[in-house]
Amino acid sequence: MEAFECIFCQKNYPVDPFHTFCPKCQEPLLYIGLQTDKKFYHNKDHPLEVMLDFLPLDRVNHDLSLGEGNTPLIRLKNVEKNFRLPALYAKNETINPTLSFKDRGTALVIQKAISLGIERIGTVSTGNMAISTAAYGARAGIKTFVLVKDGAHREILNSTGRYNPVMINVKGDYGELFRRSFSLGKKNNIYFTNSVDPFRIEGYKVTAFETFFQLDQRVPDFIFVPVSSGGHLIGIIKAFHELKQHGFIKKYPHFVGVQAEGCSPIARTFQAKKLSVERIKKAETIAKAISNPDPPGGNILLRMIRRAGGTIMSAPEDKILEAQRKLAELEGIFIQPASATILVGFLELAEKGKIGPKSRIVLILTGSGMKASGKTKQSDSQVLQASLSDLPGIIKSVKSD
Amino acid sequence: MEAFECIFCQKNYPVDPFHTFCPKCQEPLLYIGLQTDKKFYHNKDHPLEVMLDFLPLDRVNHDLSLGEGNTPLIRLKNVEKNFRLPALYAKNETINPTLSFKDRGTALVIQKAISLGIERIGTVSTGNMAISTAAYGARAGIKTFVLVKDGAHREILNSTGRYNPVMINVKGDYGELFRRSFSLGKKNNIYFTNSVDPFRIEGYKVTAFETFFQLDQRVPDFIFVPVSSGGHLIGIIKAFHELKQHGFIKKYPHFVGVQAEGCSPIARTFQAKKLSVERIKKAETIAKAISNPDPPGGNILLRMIRRAGGTIMSAPEDKILEAQRKLAELEGIFIQPASATILVGFLELAEKGKIGPKSRIVLILTGSGMKASGKTKQSDSQVLQASLSDLPGIIKSVKSD
Repeated sequence: MEAFECIFCQKNYPVDPFHTFCPKCQEPLLYIGLQTDKKFYHNKDHPLEVMLDFLPLDRVNHDLSLGEGNTPLIRLKNVEKNFRLPALYAKNETINPTLSFKDRGTALVIQKAISLGIERIGTVSTGNMAISTAAYGARAGIKTFVLVKDGAHREILNSTGRYNPVMINVKGDYGELFRRSFSLGKKNNIYFTNSVDPFRIEGYKVTAFETFFQLDQRVPDFIFVPVSSGGHLIGIIKAFHELKQHGFIKKYPHFVGVQAEGCSPIARTFQAKKLSVERIKKAETIAKAISNPDPPGGNILLRMIRRAGGTIMSAPEDKILEAQRKLAELEGIFIQPASATILVGFLELAEKGKIGPKSRIVLILTGSGMKASGKTKQSDSQVLQASLSDLPGIIKSVKSD
Repeated sequence: MEAFECIFCQKNYPVDPFHTFCPKCQEPLLYIGLQTDKKFYHNKDHPLEVMLDFLPLDRVNHDLSLGEGNTPLIRLKNVEKNFRLPALYAKNETINPTLSFKDRGTALVIQKAISLGIERIGTVSTGNMAISTAAYGARAGIKTFVLVKDGAHREILNSTGRYNPVMINVKGDYGELFRRSFSLGKKNNIYFTNSVDPFRIEGYKVTAFETFFQLDQRVPDFIFVPVSSGGHLIGIIKAFHELKQHGFIKKYPHFVGVQAEGCSPIARTFQAKKLSVERIKKAETIAKAISNPDPPGGNILLRMIRRAGGTIMSAPEDKILEAQRKLAELEGIFIQPASATILVGFLELAEKGKIGPKSRIVLILTGSGMKASGKTKQSDSQVLQASLSDLPGIIKSVKSD
């Protein structure tokens, strides 16, 4: 039987999108499906259909899809050469309908919600998730509530507002708003799908499955994922767990979650070998998209990463924009600072000799830098000035290096 | 033998990226390949490999790819319902590495350039193409020259600058700059790949091939494409021409190119039943990405569309932002105003009864609205204000319609 499971209390609960946290210990619940033989349907085009046996869906309704997934996995040979690194791949989740990995989760949530007859959804977010949820809510034609933190960037509000959700700017503590949204949802018949929603996490699994098949069914040695609330990496680990469970793989990758130093409650807890994440007082990071001082998935992520093998580390703030710039200049991929943290983390582990020369590494790039270019560092690239008549001389003067 | 062909002079020239216009009549040349049996390789993942027989490539170098293509074709049932329309599909080219269809062309150009040993590329652009060319130039590790028109939007310069090209801001006439770039390129060994480059056009063909197979090898009745210089629609028509030539299809779609009314030199020429496009003096349109008063592909596009069957029309300026908003709110897809012109054009033809109730229509969405959200109309979506304590009342007050 399918169920929601609390891995702390080792207790199962009925599958219910209005009850996604353990009533006993308040930790996030995870979805567990029917334990029959599972296979992948490689003759299908839509990734949710390819992975259907591994997902909490009976079918895929194409009218709810925005064409998410099937993102490229590309080798970063210029970065490899520049830093003398082993085989490095980027799974580019920024090439999704609303330019971030959130679409993976939202796509699955919307499929499930509509199949359950749910007519109103909501989310608490200040960024990528607000945009993604508003877009998919519009696509499904259902009323969508977006609760944003007071002081959210105007650009995010504008981008989210395009899809015409009910947007409410809420003054007060963000962690408190996150928790209260669920009871408000229950009372008002709104399915609040926040960062560690069990169905959202099921959607993130698809990224890991795709990566595995794009690597011709080889397991990467290391897989790097930016960490905010923890939901994304939880989904990635869960996918590899299921691949192992169903005999597709024998070993896990080494999972590396990376937080930005200015907001790294989970990394601090991991490094201190503690089990329970303490919220930090103030987040001060350039990586806004992963700035969560009170991550609801922190404890469960720590438990999962200790079981499967891995690390949660933090990236120094002063290296994040430099990594963002390097990836744009060396490979033509412009990501958010939040995504750049994993390049920083990877380079640090490589420098320390913790990554063998024959390793296969995957970086999961989570959000596009193009969404909010005004908020990141200006490029050092200079704009030369010319008239039509002095253009020939200026072009000639550019050195061929 | 492969060649560059002038369809006006009916004369062939050697394939040479430094000579892409007819020396006799100055019209753009088109690539013609070897006329052997061609097939599609559906077992391949990369679209350029699937279409290899139809492209001017011997192989695909994955180290040059950013994972372009394989974009979704999705049905727009909410728009259909709202406007009582026949089967309407969107081919969403905004889900490409730099968020526009330009990546299709640039991807092919870069493959070809590197295979020919070319070490420097360039482009003349003020928008999507600048960003795309700079990104692919970085990926290929070659020096990339971007000539921008004086007065280009700071946001475009910033986005392009991320990839660290040689960027030159040029004062003077844009059409003149376009023409001069080729001679400058020859002298300085820079392959200038501008809007109607024959290899770029080959890249656009891939979009049409993908669409055809996503429709299970059925030909759409109508296919709508925004028109600026003409290169994109030329590529789409050429693809269907080759499908017909090689026996895959029997009839053409009705091709509809749409310009924004404030800059519609090709549409005006078509409507006046003239053959030669006259440049217009001043472009004044909200659809900046297709604002080209002196389109270099105008004449050849007119000839191709008259041969294959189709229309070039213009979209009234005052309907463009409304169409952009409708698509976001009804389907969760936020496009540039340039792309919204085709929804305007389509709705106009539908209203006039020119589109049968059993038609199958494809809109090719060319650029993402998220790239420059500051420059488009604010959404009408209101942001409500709340504190944690009055939030329950506010949520309760939202009507379920």
